[in-house]
Amino acid sequence: MKRPLAVCLVSGGLDSCVAAAVAAREFELAFLHVNYGQRTEARELKAFQEIADFYRVKYRLVTEVPALREIGGSALTDESIKVPEGEISTDQIPITYVPFRNAHFLAIAVSWGEVLGAKRIFIGASQVDFSGYPDCRVSFFEAYNRVIAEGTRPETELRIETPLINLSKAEIVKLGAQLGAPLHLTWSCYQREDIACGRCESCLLRLKGFKEAGLKDPIPYE
Amino acid sequence: MKRPLAVCLVSGGLDSCVAAAVAAREFELAFLHVNYGQRTEARELKAFQEIADFYRVKYRLVTEVPALREIGGSALTDESIKVPEGEISTDQIPITYVPFRNAHFLAIAVSWGEVLGAKRIFIGASQVDFSGYPDCRVSFFEAYNRVIAEGTRPETELRIETPLINLSKAEIVKLGAQLGAPLHLTWSCYQREDIACGRCESCLLRLKGFKEAGLKDPIPYE
Repeated sequence: MKRPLAVCLVSGGLDSCVAAAVAAREFELAFLHVNYGQRTEARELKAFQEIADFYRVKYRLVTEVPALREIGGSALTDESIKVPEGEISTDQIPITYVPFRNAHFLAIAVSWGEVLGAKRIFIGASQVDFSGYPDCRVSFFEAYNRVIAEGTRPETELRIETPLINLSKAEIVKLGAQLGAPLHLTWSCYQREDIACGRCESCLLRLKGFKEAGLKDPIPYE
Repeated sequence: MKRPLAVCLVSGGLDSCVAAAVAAREFELAFLHVNYGQRTEARELKAFQEIADFYRVKYRLVTEVPALREIGGSALTDESIKVPEGEISTDQIPITYVPFRNAHFLAIAVSWGEVLGAKRIFIGASQVDFSGYPDCRVSFFEAYNRVIAEGTRPETELRIETPLINLSKAEIVKLGAQLGAPLHLTWSCYQREDIACGRCESCLLRLKGFKEAGLKDPIPYE
């Protein structure tokens, strides 16, 4: 029997790779990658294609949201704002927050999923180590599922799945290892594209996750 | 006292022009226009700029969502699907439906509005003569307001306003005339960019609206 299709949002990072590995257990995969003027765009795209090759993904869409760079307001998309180093932010919304970014990604996933006849959208968001991004919370995705139900054709049955939403980075690393996800192909650094800096918020979270999971991060660091 | 800011989604069509005219009574305006590979992109952009000039709008963002053309699935974005002529569709979802289009537009409006500190997003959607698009219903916008509340910063107070949602096309024409909206600058035709075809669904709805309102449509037809 033909497996139902799931659209996976794959940035090329650790979390989206593990979310795709979860999806791969039940679904045929359609991989979506969005460039939005983030600093490490080229390196993330390379990771996306390598992970897609690993899972032999036939349906791939690489697209862009130029508005996020045009609008700015984040260290990830605005060259005039520096990426912070040396600490993981906790209670505040960090300067790396890209305003309402996940809503753009989900809109594309829904439009594509509706045309493809997909049943699920997988996104690797986590609200545990989520760095205070409001668009990474369970309540955001629940509300978005309602928007999908109201804003698409009656016969469309798309629904967002967030398999990592309550997992810490260490738990995500462990789950990825269990599922045989190609963690060596993923890219997390916010700053560099050759080897990971090891100092930005994203690198620090990743390194902490591997350490707490008792595993060695397979990618090279500066 | 400085007036609060509203982001207006302005396609260049009749409805968005009248929605902007409503917003102009209370708010300072920020005009957003989105190209998405629709057939009459250049003509709509011209209308957008002329309406923005009319209202002396300082904040303007013209951006694009290439994904909608890449994904296709609609007569408006897919050259291989013909725009229907000669009838206004009623109960079915028409082939001009662009899957989940308004969710893309709203995502951009929210990201921009959050960075600008705007209080409202105005969109000229109507569920009366709405041609069966699921993303033009009250329930869709209500659900989206919940997504905005959940997915943005706690201090962000953005909310969608749909002043035309329960108005027929004739009522929209009358309201626009009352408010002195520049209806002569608007463009509605789905097919042509020089003079309106008068035969596509959008032209037929517009002509019917002016006729029922007892007013003459100021734009030329083929």
